[in-house]
Amino acid sequence: MNLVYKGKTKDVYQLETGNYLLKFKDDVTGENGVFDPGANTVGLTIDGAGKAGLKLTKMFFEKLKEKKIPTHYIDASIEDATMTVKPATVFGKGIEVICRYRAVGSFLRRYGMYIEEGQPLDSFVEVTLKDDERNDPPISEDALDMLKILTKDEYAILKSLTIEISNVIKEELAKKNIELYDIKLEFGRINNEIVLIDEISGGNMRAYKDGKYIEPLQLEKLMLQ
Amino acid sequence: MNLVYKGKTKDVYQLETGNYLLKFKDDVTGENGVFDPGANTVGLTIDGAGKAGLKLTKMFFEKLKEKKIPTHYIDASIEDATMTVKPATVFGKGIEVICRYRAVGSFLRRYGMYIEEGQPLDSFVEVTLKDDERNDPPISEDALDMLKILTKDEYAILKSLTIEISNVIKEELAKKNIELYDIKLEFGRINNEIVLIDEISGGNMRAYKDGKYIEPLQLEKLMLQ
Repeated sequence: MNLVYKGKTKDVYQLETGNYLLKFKDDVTGENGVFDPGANTVGLTIDGAGKAGLKLTKMFFEKLKEKKIPTHYIDASIEDATMTVKPATVFGKGIEVICRYRAVGSFLRRYGMYIEEGQPLDSFVEVTLKDDERNDPPISEDALDMLKILTKDEYAILKSLTIEISNVIKEELAKKNIELYDIKLEFGRINNEIVLIDEISGGNMRAYKDGKYIEPLQLEKLMLQ
Repeated sequence: MNLVYKGKTKDVYQLETGNYLLKFKDDVTGENGVFDPGANTVGLTIDGAGKAGLKLTKMFFEKLKEKKIPTHYIDASIEDATMTVKPATVFGKGIEVICRYRAVGSFLRRYGMYIEEGQPLDSFVEVTLKDDERNDPPISEDALDMLKILTKDEYAILKSLTIEISNVIKEELAKKNIELYDIKLEFGRINNEIVLIDEISGGNMRAYKDGKYIEPLQLEKLMLQ
């Protein structure tokens, strides 16, 4: 088992089968000790954050499997805080796809001239480049195509998968009276099929209950305990 | 004649006919005394910049008229540094449409992970919001539609007009062995028709000769004298 990548919140190992093992860490993104799902730096370490993230990820990925939505997920060991996944190639040097139900975060910072904080958005999808140095710039369908990161056909699939997956998550949260404001997904290719990769946890979404933001660990408790 | 708007590089007066008079000033955009067509502040004042900008604008708008491309242009007086235009309404609180032939400026700053400085781009179109406070953020077709700034049908027209107009300018420059790297256009609606508004001068494009950037005043000299 070889360590192939040390990420901000997960380490990645290659298994002898060719699959990968994702080790969830207790580090979460944020700045100055405050959690922020949109941040590019590790802001703080929270005991149990890795396992909590994995529990939610496992639950959501298994829900998606039931619905025949393609993902890289194989199985997970909560005890070891690890998830086994199929090998996938990313688009370009990695992209993030955001689905927004309310105007908060970077969307509000960009388009605040036209929208109020928290205003409802109708499953609005946008793509950003994973590029810490350039602060994850948003990128259009045309630019993704021109820079050969994603074809227009792939963009259409990515957008519709993003809405479908995000709506599943949104509905699961709604069962516990939690509202999904936005969620950040990652996709890759496995044998030319576009599949969901990475994780789905409190760390890559903004969830609110009774108008109050729910921290990642709290989200796991509300959803699973 | 009433002053209705004091802009960074032009003042706008309403005429009794209902048309508008644009008074070109000698102020140009930039920072710390250095011209930058992408800047949001007046960086410096150059004697003759207003008239030089108007001369180019007049020439280009008349060229577009010959080609039946709709604009707000009526006529111009070089001596007074004024241009008379039809009244148009802008999209939202104003948008800018950029056509790029080489990767420079904000495009390079955003997508430098995928492209080299000066790499050729195939009439690449993108839209930014006119919002000094938020540094003119780029905005996608989907977001323009959702924020009710522009419908998808209008976006298609805007994009094709932008390519058509930019290609006319590029060809005119090419006749003098000048290469257009990028150009920033503004559009509005006149009786529900989408038309080119504002100006077309050295102040809203990056033009190069023999690999060297040409300042706005120099561009006017090379093109018209």
